[in-house]
Amino acid sequence: MKPLLALDWGTTSLRGALLAADGTVVQERALPQGILSVAAGQFPSVFQNAFGDWMQDGRLCLIAGMAGSQQGWREAPYCACPAGFGDIAARLAWVEPGRIAIVPGLSIEAGGVPDVMRGEETQVFGALALLGLDDARLVLPGTHSKWVNVGGRRITHFSTWMSGEFYALLRRHSILARTLPDAEPPHDADAFMQGVQHARQGAGLLHTAFSTRTLSLFRRLPAEALPSYLSGLVIGEEVKAQSLARGDSVVVIGAPALAACYEQALALWGVAVQPVGNQATWRGLHAIAETLNSP
Amino acid sequence: MKPLLALDWGTTSLRGALLAADGTVVQERALPQGILSVAAGQFPSVFQNAFGDWMQDGRLCLIAGMAGSQQGWREAPYCACPAGFGDIAARLAWVEPGRIAIVPGLSIEAGGVPDVMRGEETQVFGALALLGLDDARLVLPGTHSKWVNVGGRRITHFSTWMSGEFYALLRRHSILARTLPDAEPPHDADAFMQGVQHARQGAGLLHTAFSTRTLSLFRRLPAEALPSYLSGLVIGEEVKAQSLARGDSVVVIGAPALAACYEQALALWGVAVQPVGNQATWRGLHAIAETLNSP
Repeated sequence: MKPLLALDWGTTSLRGALLAADGTVVQERALPQGILSVAAGQFPSVFQNAFGDWMQDGRLCLIAGMAGSQQGWREAPYCACPAGFGDIAARLAWVEPGRIAIVPGLSIEAGGVPDVMRGEETQVFGALALLGLDDARLVLPGTHSKWVNVGGRRITHFSTWMSGEFYALLRRHSILARTLPDAEPPHDADAFMQGVQHARQGAGLLHTAFSTRTLSLFRRLPAEALPSYLSGLVIGEEVKAQSLARGDSVVVIGAPALAACYEQALALWGVAVQPVGNQATWRGLHAIAETLNSP
Repeated sequence: MKPLLALDWGTTSLRGALLAADGTVVQERALPQGILSVAAGQFPSVFQNAFGDWMQDGRLCLIAGMAGSQQGWREAPYCACPAGFGDIAARLAWVEPGRIAIVPGLSIEAGGVPDVMRGEETQVFGALALLGLDDARLVLPGTHSKWVNVGGRRITHFSTWMSGEFYALLRRHSILARTLPDAEPPHDADAFMQGVQHARQGAGLLHTAFSTRTLSLFRRLPAEALPSYLSGLVIGEEVKAQSLARGDSVVVIGAPALAACYEQALALWGVAVQPVGNQATWRGLHAIAETLNSP
């Protein structure tokens, strides 16, 4: 198998890795050219400028993420859940046959409404491969966190939680922004856990968020502790809703600092964590390339 | 008793009424000069310009609302709950003795954190007087909704819900704003109730809010229906958290259009509504004036 170009082309960022035949990372690049910054019709030239030098010798490029959305390079229609690794590997959207393909996202119907993911499916299958798991509960924290159930190596259920976005809205645009410091202070683990605890006992974020203001008003928390407290309220609210049981285990896929916050929060529910870094995407794309090369 | 000047001086607005001795409204005024727009030290002149002509003949002026906050005209320290009408009437903050006074707000300690209200206490006691109730569950919907329990004519518990603010944040500043129309379409009662229903069954607003996007993405709701749907999600989330039982009754104090939304949502829980308009503030301030004039 030739070296593989693995791309994670999201809403606000474009990451790429050149992978050796055995999947090891030869080189990595990150650019700020998420799909929102690319005009229609400009995807080929942005790709060529960013990764053209890697595309020598008839190499294959596989792309995960929002590049497959209606606003992306080429729409890759969603695969309906339950869906396994074989389903997404078999339904690539080819931009250039045999050369550049986009991995489809997943859709699910739950409680009468649809939910979707794009990019996370590749991370999930990559993480399963890295950890050697057939069944798992996973979370991919972020602007729009995904909680995912895997059974028999198939994604059986998932849901989106707008936690990162709610935090940013409350942090920057709500009345709470008036009492929070403009600059981001260092993470305060105690204040964070105080927020998680309050979310766990509280009646919902619509109510608990206001405590960020009153704890400041009554001088119970200093201004520098408030962002971590608010973060704890939001992440605690998300975790509380997952109906986790003591002794459960959750795979957390994401950057170390945020993953550590989830690990700290989940410990309060007696839930253990298996962390996986962002290399899960490269592992997932490499596995897809292997299926294309197998007879 | 002489005519009374009754003021509701909030964060973003200043409303005033001239009340006859029997409490009937002689005249009303509304100005955009909420306390956020008044510089420190300028409260007397803003007051004089707005209502000086009503202050003839040694009349009394009573003010409810954020004018009693640290950023207001004169701080009126919170009364701790449980608190009755007599408690707030006895603890007025006098700006000019015998002439201008501010009604104190209430504070409560619940679940280890404080909560506060300013202005709503006056509306609650006014509503109880208007309806002749000694015990009640009340809601004052708005940017920061208040849910209030009254037992034996005392406020025994209350809590703040940032529903109006969450709606505005999601409506204007979140990713959902991209699919929602810029202009405010007419209220869509069906879409609103669809949102309330989904909130009722759903696992929390962090998750259900995302359905505003996916229902649009899958063309299940037209763009003009999305604001009402989102409003239903937020109000449904607030109502769901109140642990109401079928057959309960709730007093809704507020403007008719918003009160009607709450009535529609509460009906889903089998809860009946007693609506009270914004005259509750005038009734509450008039009752305080009566206690000052009684021997």
